[in-house]
Amino acid sequence: MKLLYPTSLKLDVSSIEGFSVELHAYDVKKTLPEELIDAEMLVTWTNSAENLKDAAGRMKNLGWIQSLAAGPNDVLSAGFDASKITITTGSGLHDHTVAEHALGLLLNAARRFYEMRDYQLQGKWPGHLGGPQPDRPAGAFTTLRDARVLVWGFGNIAKSLAPHLVGLGAHVRGIARSRGVRDGIEVYGEDSLPELLPETDALVMILPGSDATRHALNAERLKLLPKHAWVVNVGRGTSIDEDALVDALDKGDVGGAALDVFQTEPLPESSRLWKAPNVVVSPHAAGGRPQGAEALIADNLRRFRAGQDLKNVI
Amino acid sequence: MKLLYPTSLKLDVSSIEGFSVELHAYDVKKTLPEELIDAEMLVTWTNSAENLKDAAGRMKNLGWIQSLAAGPNDVLSAGFDASKITITTGSGLHDHTVAEHALGLLLNAARRFYEMRDYQLQGKWPGHLGGPQPDRPAGAFTTLRDARVLVWGFGNIAKSLAPHLVGLGAHVRGIARSRGVRDGIEVYGEDSLPELLPETDALVMILPGSDATRHALNAERLKLLPKHAWVVNVGRGTSIDEDALVDALDKGDVGGAALDVFQTEPLPESSRLWKAPNVVVSPHAAGGRPQGAEALIADNLRRFRAGQDLKNVI
Repeated sequence: MKLLYPTSLKLDVSSIEGFSVELHAYDVKKTLPEELIDAEMLVTWTNSAENLKDAAGRMKNLGWIQSLAAGPNDVLSAGFDASKITITTGSGLHDHTVAEHALGLLLNAARRFYEMRDYQLQGKWPGHLGGPQPDRPAGAFTTLRDARVLVWGFGNIAKSLAPHLVGLGAHVRGIARSRGVRDGIEVYGEDSLPELLPETDALVMILPGSDATRHALNAERLKLLPKHAWVVNVGRGTSIDEDALVDALDKGDVGGAALDVFQTEPLPESSRLWKAPNVVVSPHAAGGRPQGAEALIADNLRRFRAGQDLKNVI
Repeated sequence: MKLLYPTSLKLDVSSIEGFSVELHAYDVKKTLPEELIDAEMLVTWTNSAENLKDAAGRMKNLGWIQSLAAGPNDVLSAGFDASKITITTGSGLHDHTVAEHALGLLLNAARRFYEMRDYQLQGKWPGHLGGPQPDRPAGAFTTLRDARVLVWGFGNIAKSLAPHLVGLGAHVRGIARSRGVRDGIEVYGEDSLPELLPETDALVMILPGSDATRHALNAERLKLLPKHAWVVNVGRGTSIDEDALVDALDKGDVGGAALDVFQTEPLPESSRLWKAPNVVVSPHAAGGRPQGAEALIADNLRRFRAGQDLKNVI
């Protein structure tokens, strides 16, 4: 049996040895060479669309694809035979990196580093942002301490993020499909949004991209947020109605938006987001560096060989 | 007996009642009215130099000054009779705020939000900062995870900061006058700097302003840092030789500097720091909002009335 692993990231290949499986490196930006086409297992990371489409057509023995992306839309749309092939995601490999970025965006918003930068570029001291300040004034998002943070899309990334927010003194609540208390955080259903959004200083969106989440944050829901509330998005750009968001920003109906993902990426030159007030544009930089991929591949490889259920099946 | 409290911040005055002491509000930007001059106790916050100088000359009964600043240089230089008056600081009231700001500056540096902003202002997508990235590459400060953070000046603020850094996966060590393990962090003396600086990805300076700390980070010590290392300063500006720092930045001998304090504030227009590569200018914004002042005032007021040693005596 053959497993193909990508050369598009550094993998410690010795950590996936020991399964009586041939391990072969492959170039994710080229079509596969003839001698690898009979592989049963394929690990993908930043593959080109051509590579995946070609593989979907030629790999007749393929039984399992392990993507290292959290949301492997590229693999899903390449034409692989879903009735024969198990596809597993890299969910969990990006928790730390995305959580750190989300935390950074929240602090960038609260501490207004983006505004300080604008002053610095003009050689001006932003005196209004320094010196004596009111402590946790009502109607402003100036610190995570005592801030009410609502995390919409409460999965693994949120579980990684929440302890940092709690440690900094924030009051954290979550929204997910299933209710309950998770790792000490109260998680509500989307039907609670009308009550929760008005009590939110910072809304962190970590929703996956799908038809169900498209424009989840729309004009109607934006209206429910307090005027000072910030929106942070490290999930998928399609979950926000960007036109409605820019309208709300222009009108001062929300405090600001720190966005790592967009409906179209790179963000088009014509987008109104570039210049809308209090927008922080981050270029899909939260994740993009899987951590602990070897352990996930090895575990799923063992399960695949043993005929057991795999982890992170789509 | 009379205690004067400032109106320059919101205080819950009911929390310092109960000591058979008259509590009087006063304006920190004006000279004291005649009827308050006989007060025994004075709480200060952002007082004008004139106010303090006048008080030093006229308040003959004064026995205790409670500053709410962490480093009350203003009170010390106003001419109060140190032989008669106990001066106590607001040390501890700024731990959370300064720690949060320091964390924000570290993430700003690692995630290069300042550079993203420069692109945004030009309507350009900084593609090199997003998408697939190497994970924790050697010779770069890209994340706090596994980053080696050295905190120089390991007091209360550092103790508040360290858990956040550890929680994000950083390896934290400290430098202070007295060695030992504090809250689980190994703290070294300054004589260990030659060994520690070369093993540092981010140096966080939280030194007080004094003759002893003047230019603590000088050209010689900057040379010991790796070329990718960042310097973060939330202590006092005098602790860094700014000319040496700009030289190091210009030559690429250090990775960057995120500075909340400067030798001269506001940072003069002529400063080379404005335009040096990878400098983040923050306008002394880390603290400036005492938290928990009432509890400190009440505790010291009780001690003062009981003839006991006060807390935070200079």
